[in-house]
Amino acid sequence: MNIIEGGVTAPKGFMASGTACGIKKDKKKDLALIASEGTAAASGVFTTNTVKGHSLQVTLEHIKNGYAQAIVINSGNANACVGEQGYKDALEMASLTAQLLHCEPEDVLVGSTGVIGTQLNMANVRSGIRDAAATLSTDGGHSAEEAIMTTDLMAKEIAVELEIQGESVRIGGMAKGSGMLHPNMATLIGIISTDINISRGLLDKALKDTVKHTFNRVSVDGDTSVCDMVIILANGEADNAGIVKEDAEYEKFVSALALVCTSLSRMIAKDGEGATKLIEVTLEGAANEEDAYKGVSAIAKSPLVKTAIYGEDANWGRIITAAGYSGADFDPNLIDIFIGDLMVCRNGAAVEFDEEKAKKILKANEVKIKVNLKRGNFSDRIWTCDFSCDYVKINGSYRS
Amino acid sequence: MNIIEGGVTAPKGFMASGTACGIKKDKKKDLALIASEGTAAASGVFTTNTVKGHSLQVTLEHIKNGYAQAIVINSGNANACVGEQGYKDALEMASLTAQLLHCEPEDVLVGSTGVIGTQLNMANVRSGIRDAAATLSTDGGHSAEEAIMTTDLMAKEIAVELEIQGESVRIGGMAKGSGMLHPNMATLIGIISTDINISRGLLDKALKDTVKHTFNRVSVDGDTSVCDMVIILANGEADNAGIVKEDAEYEKFVSALALVCTSLSRMIAKDGEGATKLIEVTLEGAANEEDAYKGVSAIAKSPLVKTAIYGEDANWGRIITAAGYSGADFDPNLIDIFIGDLMVCRNGAAVEFDEEKAKKILKANEVKIKVNLKRGNFSDRIWTCDFSCDYVKINGSYRS
Repeated sequence: MNIIEGGVTAPKGFMASGTACGIKKDKKKDLALIASEGTAAASGVFTTNTVKGHSLQVTLEHIKNGYAQAIVINSGNANACVGEQGYKDALEMASLTAQLLHCEPEDVLVGSTGVIGTQLNMANVRSGIRDAAATLSTDGGHSAEEAIMTTDLMAKEIAVELEIQGESVRIGGMAKGSGMLHPNMATLIGIISTDINISRGLLDKALKDTVKHTFNRVSVDGDTSVCDMVIILANGEADNAGIVKEDAEYEKFVSALALVCTSLSRMIAKDGEGATKLIEVTLEGAANEEDAYKGVSAIAKSPLVKTAIYGEDANWGRIITAAGYSGADFDPNLIDIFIGDLMVCRNGAAVEFDEEKAKKILKANEVKIKVNLKRGNFSDRIWTCDFSCDYVKINGSYRS
Repeated sequence: MNIIEGGVTAPKGFMASGTACGIKKDKKKDLALIASEGTAAASGVFTTNTVKGHSLQVTLEHIKNGYAQAIVINSGNANACVGEQGYKDALEMASLTAQLLHCEPEDVLVGSTGVIGTQLNMANVRSGIRDAAATLSTDGGHSAEEAIMTTDLMAKEIAVELEIQGESVRIGGMAKGSGMLHPNMATLIGIISTDINISRGLLDKALKDTVKHTFNRVSVDGDTSVCDMVIILANGEADNAGIVKEDAEYEKFVSALALVCTSLSRMIAKDGEGATKLIEVTLEGAANEEDAYKGVSAIAKSPLVKTAIYGEDANWGRIITAAGYSGADFDPNLIDIFIGDLMVCRNGAAVEFDEEKAKKILKANEVKIKVNLKRGNFSDRIWTCDFSCDYVKINGSYRS
């Protein structure tokens, strides 16, 4: 498997574009279009928030039959909580795109991300869609990525090439999201394209299994937004015979998909609003899967843990505290805690450690925290980031 | 009922003192002693964290019989997660105090608050306890309060006087806590003293019922610490005949206790680390008690809501988002949201509102957020604070 250039337009038969139509201030790109030459098998994972954005509601309808051809996404406005007009606007985004691409409106998925509670300026959106359709290109992946970014500082793209059933197959991915992020799903839009031939059912299974341990294990601030989606389109333009059962070739595909989703997830955590460090929190030795998640999630979410890491302070008391209130079952007299490879707490009590070594570990761009409850055999892992003043600054004036 | 001076030493038969014994840097007071002349009925509410500080463990043992005479508290060191020695040190704090006050070690409760994972310097603690016992006085309430503060900027004290069964009765209270705060219990120590004559059972009921809606409804950062306790001592030095049933006089006492606990709780939220504003979040119209709490808690805990209020930005999209992921059951098309008395969302959709009026409401020191789910008749309320850069600064270098 090789990592290659091109993002979502790396796989055969995909085109994309990104354009600025005036939804965002200062002429930044705000409308993205990703299209397959023909209809593609499609699957998605969506926010668990009770409140759902209007564009996401349209996508939920349109993806039901398991096929799609294009995805149109605007940034700068979430198209959420604006009443009936929001749903109508999302439908119009799909129908206008369909008309320009000569496909069915039901084959167009719609995404929106940005401020909640403000109606879309549809005159801008229409001109953006027309412009995006006219400029679709097989190397437009990066441009589309730019057009879905909001407070993101880094573009988040990756593509891989691998051999499946003796033929070259490609998977491309792009994502946005840096605040309002917590499992399950976040202010996150992730688009995966692939030219593999695979049954709809297996595509769906592969995506859902992979998202669980990748996109659903990213936390920036514990907030789950109303617009989040990860979508995969598989257009079958590659020459592989077709994956129709869970064999070794299927597993190869899943591994490659996991690499794509893991890379994008880590990029999201690293680019968390105001983040200076990527933090990987691993919890081992839980009694069951649920406890593993509860424990790792409480630690990754704790503002006190995140500010301590920002301050490069080996304040493990906050880690044990978060584990303690997580609801996970464990004996406080058995828990071990490591910062990087440095043990800082053994059997629930402080161990002497080299503060200089701790400082060095905490000065790095990536910090690993590991907790072992010694209660069972279940583990989990979350990527998050530290909490800085810049997070506060960014989020204190987001609408302005 | 009148609000009076004196804090925990306002009621008859209580003495207190605060002293500096070198646990904290820069000679700040770090050891507090509160003592009743005779044995008092005692009750407490304690952290729900699985991990419990060593001093708290001793207090849990000593309060079991329902009586106590004194409380000794150090700040600057949580006496938590240091192994067996921590428990022994807490026992010694109790026995030394008992020896000096001529009471039983089991009648002394122990509290510690500060950094986790560092052993107490017992030489300092011993000299502090001796000094505190020697300086106990009937106007020492404020000094004791100063000695339990950590990152607190404001002293948190109140006392009230009321008539019960035709006699004057007093209740005094003091508290500390400004970070690592979330229901249930926080880095919170609250001490309530009263001279009322009341049965142990009713004292216990009154405290537990009151804490539920006061101290347990304060959230600063969503973290629940390992050392939190609210303790009440009732020494019966007042001349009231004695409260032995839940009659009108009992209700009068409960109302006064609620005022004391509410005042201290609001002071804690207002003095949250880095806080510039007190935020009162109320949720109405929930289907049941649990949903009311889930909803109000998610909103009060959301870093995105708290940074928006810090930035004086009426970004209600974050409020509806938090309600949406809280797990509370509601119809997104019915929810109403108010900032102060200004409606910003009706039936799940934006309403036009006067941004200038919103700015004015958000500029105040106290901001009210109200959400109505219109799903049932249950409501709940939490006090929290905004999230500022100073929170990050304070918590990035707490151990240093």
